[in-house]
Amino acid sequence: MADILIADRAQIDVCFSPFLYPVYEKEGQIVVVIDVLRATSAICTAFQYGVDKMIPVATVEEAMAYKQQGYLVGAERNAIAIEGFDFGNSPYSYMTEKIKGQTVVITTTNGTQAIEAAKNAYAVVIGSFLNITALCNWLIAENKPILLLCSGWKNKFNLEDTLFAGAVTEILSKHDNFKLLDGALATKYLYQQAHQNPYKFLNYSSHKERLSAMGLKDDIKYCLTLDQTQVIPILKDKYLVLNS
Amino acid sequence: MADILIADRAQIDVCFSPFLYPVYEKEGQIVVVIDVLRATSAICTAFQYGVDKMIPVATVEEAMAYKQQGYLVGAERNAIAIEGFDFGNSPYSYMTEKIKGQTVVITTTNGTQAIEAAKNAYAVVIGSFLNITALCNWLIAENKPILLLCSGWKNKFNLEDTLFAGAVTEILSKHDNFKLLDGALATKYLYQQAHQNPYKFLNYSSHKERLSAMGLKDDIKYCLTLDQTQVIPILKDKYLVLNS
Repeated sequence: MADILIADRAQIDVCFSPFLYPVYEKEGQIVVVIDVLRATSAICTAFQYGVDKMIPVATVEEAMAYKQQGYLVGAERNAIAIEGFDFGNSPYSYMTEKIKGQTVVITTTNGTQAIEAAKNAYAVVIGSFLNITALCNWLIAENKPILLLCSGWKNKFNLEDTLFAGAVTEILSKHDNFKLLDGALATKYLYQQAHQNPYKFLNYSSHKERLSAMGLKDDIKYCLTLDQTQVIPILKDKYLVLNS
Repeated sequence: MADILIADRAQIDVCFSPFLYPVYEKEGQIVVVIDVLRATSAICTAFQYGVDKMIPVATVEEAMAYKQQGYLVGAERNAIAIEGFDFGNSPYSYMTEKIKGQTVVITTTNGTQAIEAAKNAYAVVIGSFLNITALCNWLIAENKPILLLCSGWKNKFNLEDTLFAGAVTEILSKHDNFKLLDGALATKYLYQQAHQNPYKFLNYSSHKERLSAMGLKDDIKYCLTLDQTQVIPILKDKYLVLNS
């Protein structure tokens, strides 16, 4: 009987790159897309500030086509907001009245690529430290297999998304109804080392170095702040909307 | 001047799946293929016991063709030695006089796939806990960019190969001439948690569970033993030979 109970536990696994997603794809699993510095933090912030819908797109060309139709558009490549658009991917740029009730299009170096890769999953939700508790409570209630999909940096592993995957795994692993696979175990162990001071833990990470060199330390600190919002953006067809 | 020295440091990175290798491929880097449970441990053991050359092949069909030509052949799938061949991938099966001076063909679920993926790299060497110090000393002397390529399990991340990548990174990071990228940083942090008792650290890992269920705990323990040999198998054309 114990064996049956164990077999029934929902699995948690982690995929460290959108490129690797086909290896982890399976029916019926919830995919949490993670790009904490900064796309998924920006998306959570936009919903917290009242955006109605967001349309994640993979290319700047698609974003430009929407812009020409009159949409508000956020566009970032290589950590820089692209000129001619309304926002980049700094969460601070979405803390504005002008997005309230609007549909905002967004394209970023990594995060929107991960959403694109996972778009046919049973459910695709957006995770960041900003909505972590709300997200985990929802995942626990759903009790489905979970894949934590790290956006990484240009399909390579990165430390900050891994850290967030570990934070989620740490919370979920307190509930007996989940079985941690190897990727989840590894991120949980990492988070246990980092949780006292995630900012310091990321000191030598490549993207923290990149953003710090651009004067974006405040962005990093904000993106590592827990529970600034209860929103859980979820993909419905081509739109990110509030999970209800 | 300090900046120039930092820029000149050779990078260490980790690739967690053969499937992801194309993302990490670059000219001039040494690839260390890692499949500690058990292919690369078996290969190191075979060279320690006097094998002359090994031919890693990706498929059982290729292995069978060599067998029919009279070669000694090791063949494993899903942790089980395939019937009709001379060895599986237990290191113990290679501790025999009969391999001395011979050419042995080998195919395994994961390790030989990783070798195949990396075969065009500047150099491809075989890493395991059994040869870790000899390997690290050689890597330090070479002073080239290093990619630690974890074979994983059927293209998924696994904990034991990650742990070994961390052990290598921990040793190399004591030398200022290396720059650790995010994957290397993560594995180093993991190893720091695990190094007191790697066997226990792997307790919940999927492949340890798999091998333990098959009564292969002795194999696991041996594969986690440091420095049983000085050999560094290296790929030259289609052959693994002793590095000289």
